[in-house]
Amino acid sequence: MIRTAVLGATGYTARELLNLLLRHPEVEITALTTRKDSRLHVAEVHPSLRGRLDLVLENLSPQEVAERADCVFGCLPHGASAAAVSELLAADCRVVDFSADYRLNDPQVYAKWYGVEHPDPGRMPETVYGLPELYRDGIRGAKLVANPGCYPTAAILALAPLLKQGVISPHGIVIDAKSGISGAGRSPKANLHFPEANENLTAYNIGGHRHTPEIDQVLSTWADVETNVIFSPHLIPMDRGELITAYADTTKEITTEGLLEVLRTFYSAEPFVRVVEHFPGTKDVAQTNFCDITVCQVNGKAVVVSAIDNLVKGASGAAVQNFNLMYGFSETLALL
Amino acid sequence: MIRTAVLGATGYTARELLNLLLRHPEVEITALTTRKDSRLHVAEVHPSLRGRLDLVLENLSPQEVAERADCVFGCLPHGASAAAVSELLAADCRVVDFSADYRLNDPQVYAKWYGVEHPDPGRMPETVYGLPELYRDGIRGAKLVANPGCYPTAAILALAPLLKQGVISPHGIVIDAKSGISGAGRSPKANLHFPEANENLTAYNIGGHRHTPEIDQVLSTWADVETNVIFSPHLIPMDRGELITAYADTTKEITTEGLLEVLRTFYSAEPFVRVVEHFPGTKDVAQTNFCDITVCQVNGKAVVVSAIDNLVKGASGAAVQNFNLMYGFSETLALL
Amino acid sequence: MIRTAVLGATGYTARELLNLLLRHPEVEITALTTRKDSRLHVAEVHPSLRGRLDLVLENLSPQEVAERADCVFGCLPHGASAAAVSELLAADCRVVDFSADYRLNDPQVYAKWYGVEHPDPGRMPETVYGLPELYRDGIRGAKLVANPGCYPTAAILALAPLLKQGVISPHGIVIDAKSGISGAGRSPKANLHFPEANENLTAYNIGGHRHTPEIDQVLSTWADVETNVIFSPHLIPMDRGELITAYADTTKEITTEGLLEVLRTFYSAEPFVRVVEHFPGTKDVAQTNFCDITVCQVNGKAVVVSAIDNLVKGASGAAVQNFNLMYGFSETLALL
Amino acid sequence: MIRTAVLGATGYTARELLNLLLRHPEVEITALTTRKDSRLHVAEVHPSLRGRLDLVLENLSPQEVAERADCVFGCLPHGASAAAVSELLAADCRVVDFSADYRLNDPQVYAKWYGVEHPDPGRMPETVYGLPELYRDGIRGAKLVANPGCYPTAAILALAPLLKQGVISPHGIVIDAKSGISGAGRSPKANLHFPEANENLTAYNIGGHRHTPEIDQVLSTWADVETNVIFSPHLIPMDRGELITAYADTTKEITTEGLLEVLRTFYSAEPFVRVVEHFPGTKDVAQTNFCDITVCQVNGKAVVVSAIDNLVKGASGAAVQNFNLMYGFSETLALL
Repeated sequence: MIRTAVLGATGYTARELLNLLLRHPEVEITALTTRKDSRLHVAEVHPSLRGRLDLVLENLSPQEVAERADCVFGCLPHGASAAAVSELLAADCRVVDFSADYRLNDPQVYAKWYGVEHPDPGRMPETVYGLPELYRDGIRGAKLVANPGCYPTAAILALAPLLKQGVISPHGIVIDAKSGISGAGRSPKANLHFPEANENLTAYNIGGHRHTPEIDQVLSTWADVETNVIFSPHLIPMDRGELITAYADTTKEITTEGLLEVLRTFYSAEPFVRVVEHFPGTKDVAQTNFCDITVCQVNGKAVVVSAIDNLVKGASGAAVQNFNLMYGFSETLALL
Repeated sequence: MIRTAVLGATGYTARELLNLLLRHPEVEITALTTRKDSRLHVAEVHPSLRGRLDLVLENLSPQEVAERADCVFGCLPHGASAAAVSELLAADCRVVDFSADYRLNDPQVYAKWYGVEHPDPGRMPETVYGLPELYRDGIRGAKLVANPGCYPTAAILALAPLLKQGVISPHGIVIDAKSGISGAGRSPKANLHFPEANENLTAYNIGGHRHTPEIDQVLSTWADVETNVIFSPHLIPMDRGELITAYADTTKEITTEGLLEVLRTFYSAEPFVRVVEHFPGTKDVAQTNFCDITVCQVNGKAVVVSAIDNLVKGASGAAVQNFNLMYGFSETLALL
Repeated sequence: MIRTAVLGATGYTARELLNLLLRHPEVEITALTTRKDSRLHVAEVHPSLRGRLDLVLENLSPQEVAERADCVFGCLPHGASAAAVSELLAADCRVVDFSADYRLNDPQVYAKWYGVEHPDPGRMPETVYGLPELYRDGIRGAKLVANPGCYPTAAILALAPLLKQGVISPHGIVIDAKSGISGAGRSPKANLHFPEANENLTAYNIGGHRHTPEIDQVLSTWADVETNVIFSPHLIPMDRGELITAYADTTKEITTEGLLEVLRTFYSAEPFVRVVEHFPGTKDVAQTNFCDITVCQVNGKAVVVSAIDNLVKGASGAAVQNFNLMYGFSETLALL
Repeated sequence: MIRTAVLGATGYTARELLNLLLRHPEVEITALTTRKDSRLHVAEVHPSLRGRLDLVLENLSPQEVAERADCVFGCLPHGASAAAVSELLAADCRVVDFSADYRLNDPQVYAKWYGVEHPDPGRMPETVYGLPELYRDGIRGAKLVANPGCYPTAAILALAPLLKQGVISPHGIVIDAKSGISGAGRSPKANLHFPEANENLTAYNIGGHRHTPEIDQVLSTWADVETNVIFSPHLIPMDRGELITAYADTTKEITTEGLLEVLRTFYSAEPFVRVVEHFPGTKDVAQTNFCDITVCQVNGKAVVVSAIDNLVKGASGAAVQNFNLMYGFSETLALL
């Protein structure tokens, strides 16, 4: 049994993670933290977990966490996360970090997009990016895994194989992204107040969203080309689900079937990527760790559509998949 | 042209009111107030009104408002509202007050339910309750009208005629009420955050909602019986709309048709109450000032169902209807 | 491994059931039926199950099903279900029947409410009603279990212990019920078309819903009193979730705490009923087999609120709970 | 008073149109048609109109309609519409046609995308396209106006001025479009059933939607360039509202401010287009005839975002705007 702790256990990704971990036969949940001192029971914070888990949320130091846990899932905001992670690793914990702190390799890119200096820059380039479909070998046995952002997961899974095969151009890629509102977190905000967000549809942060450099870095590094994507996120009036519609110039004459074949070949052995021949809906993957992808060729562009549940494959399911790989468990454990 | 001002113009009822007043041929909107000093343009507060109205929200005193306006619509919270109202009346303005301050007649009941002493108790019993279907004559020519609460509007219209005719008992009346979330106002709150409220359904404040004494007072006074209703509100994952399902013992053998006939007779000349023979949906009355009502007899109880738009007939539409009556305009002006 | 089949596998309850059975360690899914001959793969009917289950929906006779399965979950409509059930039992299958066919004991009540003669009336009174909280002993080892309706589950769990203890009166009970729209099934209908049902709220079938006699029968039989409930269902614009607000006269002076204590005592050992002291939301129990219940005393009435997921505790989760009891497995297997 | 009729009065655009016409001081509604013989009262078909309009839906011939009406709004499907339109014009009616029949100029393009021969090809090239912002002069005094599609309205308003000014390239334009579900009409369909469409997000018909040639024709003709847009529509779980996010290469160094200035200049005198500097939400324009547009420059592309209400500016509001122009009324009559 792996003793596991969850840092920052008040949000939606933490709740989703706890639901998954409660089903995991090799996991014992031993600590939940929060940065408040109110010592609320987990059932007060997450009423759906009443009767499932008898723990209080505590304001614990990394050292205190390390005494109780072998593996830590970090659901803290960027900045705060890196500070805790370096102490946890020093105390011999393994860590799956949900924050953006170890996703980027370059401290200067981090400083530009996140507006702060990285507290632990040396570890940035060596940390594996937790997308098993691209970096499975590096995740196996890793001490620290940077769990990907939700948008990057869906966008990279859609584009990476096509870029690597050279059938689409790295120039001028457009990623039109749509997300359910749980992706924006649990803190009430004016624009996420129900009567504002419901029956409404908006774009936000076009050209300025922090997932942009993450997508570019992973696509560029992994496919060995330089991309400079245009990333346009939109808020959709639904709880969960994320859909990416990506547009890229094809580099040669290629049919829809040819594009599909590139995806099918690449993902043929993947347990959680399903290449489909219809336009997938987010509901097809809701509450699951699947990513459904399709592609079609229109007027010289490949139009790739991928769907995930932002809280599962886009966050907590991916974290459990990474955990399974880190510890050598079956990759699908607790996820099917 | 009646020069009109709106106090507390940042919320949903104020926005709805402005939309109606902009269509009203006898109204000029001359001032909008807020209790902040930020002097935002109305289009920044209500983007939908961009290009429709060129006013800044100002932190004005009642005296300053009175210089610019003949009639004032007060969308302030209880307590704050009464303070402003007495000054406005002294300055010879007419007022339609959306707050609860002048709905109740009894200062002690007010103190018990609202937790504060009323600042202007003498005016409470003499203020007319702005439900035209019950108090049209009193509203005509009034200087001050207490605009009803949304739940009381739907509940009283459903029950009052049946009580007055004596076909239902005043004892043990149950009012199971369901409201869209705009009824809870525009301030973000944890339970109204989209991912909490969406796909969710909860009861709240059963037995303790402040609209309870308002319903009891109006039903008891108007129908000359003493009621003590059980009022159970519920939050429904939709923007607007309110449905009341009320249950009362019938006092004698009476059929569904007999109950319907009582309602039809009472409302036969009403421009905004439609007695129907199907179960009305809130969408039938959305964006309108109508109240659709039906009733059926089941196992010795009358089950009355009424539907309104909480922001129109439950607030701003009713206010305009009252305004029309106060000034002698056609009652339906700007409302059809 | 129990070989299991699902009859009528195209709907929402069947999909939910398959999701649960796929997690069940003692179950092998061996056949899915439909009454059409199109032989669609389950992934075409339920895209979310792609890659999870490799079966085709077949138009099989009960005999063909019996050759492949030890236990059958029947998701057929009433009437059609009883015809299949009697043949399956004759062929030595065990059956969990989702239809209404074996819930009622009295063929005449069935004929009145369902408008047809029951094809297998003799088996009606002897079939156990599959609500483990009331009939656990009868379910253990049963060959046939009548899985309860969704509304009856939430209503009976709310009222039964209070009735049995005699703290509420059986006369004049009002059950105001609210359900998400998946409860109405998967067939498109005019009133369930998204732009009709969304942002809408309606009552339907007040006094005439077929779950009424089911509630009355179980409450009356189990608590040994005669009830004649007024049952008012409402459609709520959300996918899943059901909330019951029930109103009953208290028979004596009793506080909210006293009422809660009756519920706590009765449900103290139940794995899936949580008595809570706040008003539960349907989201607290979404995607789970839990029923959250609370009660308060208002003006001489007990107001009981219970929340379930209509597709889980209200249908497929209850079916798996029954299956576990029938076969002597842990009652919570595949359900936590 | 202009006597007006509505053909095909059962759908959402017809209902929206009736709501607008009921407010129009120069309009008398004299006939409503349907192609069924059931003679339902309009209040049975549109419960929200009860008490507003006392007409029966009749299965009338174009000749019968022409006897009662000066101007006809046609809400019939393509094909059926052209057949009626030519007879109505022959009988001296004026017509605003909501169908696609007279939007395209080229019968061969029509045949390719709509799968049928056009019944009245001669009139196609001479019919004015009813987008006042581009073709106001042609609409004034016209006998027949082809009311634009909802997606083309939002897409063309977003792109036309930028194309005309030559600041964006006509090659490789991507239009990622998102629509509320009322855009798909009132007929129940499996994918529009509430529990399928709610909490779901899908792309559909990418590269194959019939609005594609309409957008290309109008952009190409009006801006005198040849476009070949990639049009990707998506279904959003909300009633109404449409958002276009369009991507086009800029032809030269130009800033966001420079792009905005092109739009501001072009639309400076337009009553219903608002150029804004934030990302507009569909709720900002819900229930109005406004189109809110913004643009920004990202990595060498102009990203244009426009929002309309698909039932108002995307259908019935545009029709009333066209009607006002045809008859020389104030263009905003009944629309503000």
